[in-house]
Amino acid sequence: MAMEVACFDLEGVFVPEIWIAVAERTGVDDLRLTTRDVADYDTLMRHRLSVLDREGLRLADIQSVIATLSPLPGAREFLGWARRNFQVVVLSDTFYDFAAPLMAQLDQPVLFCHNLEIDEDGRIAGYRLRLPNQKFHAVKAFQDLQFSVLAAGDSYNDTAMLCQADAGFLINPPPVVVEEFPQLPVARSFDELREFMVAASSRTLVD
Amino acid sequence: MAMEVACFDLEGVFVPEIWIAVAERTGVDDLRLTTRDVADYDTLMRHRLSVLDREGLRLADIQSVIATLSPLPGAREFLGWARRNFQVVVLSDTFYDFAAPLMAQLDQPVLFCHNLEIDEDGRIAGYRLRLPNQKFHAVKAFQDLQFSVLAAGDSYNDTAMLCQADAGFLINPPPVVVEEFPQLPVARSFDELREFMVAASSRTLVD
Repeated sequence: MAMEVACFDLEGVFVPEIWIAVAERTGVDDLRLTTRDVADYDTLMRHRLSVLDREGLRLADIQSVIATLSPLPGAREFLGWARRNFQVVVLSDTFYDFAAPLMAQLDQPVLFCHNLEIDEDGRIAGYRLRLPNQKFHAVKAFQDLQFSVLAAGDSYNDTAMLCQADAGFLINPPPVVVEEFPQLPVARSFDELREFMVAASSRTLVD
Repeated sequence: MAMEVACFDLEGVFVPEIWIAVAERTGVDDLRLTTRDVADYDTLMRHRLSVLDREGLRLADIQSVIATLSPLPGAREFLGWARRNFQVVVLSDTFYDFAAPLMAQLDQPVLFCHNLEIDEDGRIAGYRLRLPNQKFHAVKAFQDLQFSVLAAGDSYNDTAMLCQADAGFLINPPPVVVEEFPQLPVARSFDELREFMVAASSRTLVD
């Protein structure tokens, strides 16, 4: 092993998009909106929280939906390989309150994300971003600690970290992101991402 | 889960002191010296590498000794608990080349440490500190990323990180460190360290 950190996005890469899954399993279509539909994240989150209130859905309800989700096929195995070869940190804009059951299924990788504000009745009263643009800042911090950083993600909110990383890769991104960031190699599977990482690493990696 | 990172020292906390173990299992007593005997780390490391050369010991020999070591009793279980409750990063002044087999036995926690320089014959030609005072700088970096940091370690080279952490604890330290850092609470077991961390955390932790 050597001085390389690998950073990965979570939703859409290792686990399903959580809000979409919650919309599907609760039947509340208003929860389907994503940053593709509402560009401003704060507006989107306030919309989501007002829908939860309207439907009487509390944190425990959302968590019980999330508890039924599984990692995407191949994610756990890929992450196991990555952890044998790199110091892995998952960088996500989800919330610890949501991610916990999925992290357990992925063998507890380190996760940097955000927190919800839960009131005494278990209602989701708000959210607190730990740090704006946290993915970019985390990659930068690892580089300042003298690590090389490899990174992979699928969406717009990953592109700042992918461009800052010493080697950044898109995995299964939407076409619009590919068009806008032609400099980022595109992997279509974990096997392909693994090949990219093997080629980008300064070391001989293990299986 | 919430916005708390937990940092731990490795040798003497989760695994045996590696150089001491290598001295014992190879019978080369000159490898027993530690920073308690030779204050200057570079002098100590150059001594160790010259002893390895004299004895004809290469990286593979040291690694095969290390492969016979096990984590300290209770370490894996404690670390499992810590990872269910915190984002855990192990901060050590050992080398990735040495730590790898022990990390596998601890379920691959994230490890920030240093690298050896290995020549084409597998001889340990030198070492490269990733960053001087890296434990302190890592804690500071996590705080700059808006995490609270809990930290635990056993020796002098941990005290900078323990004092910088939002909550720092000594675990099974030598008396001289306890005397010099009376402000740091002293845990005598993983159970006690766990109690300290439960009390210091801003959250309700799980078992």
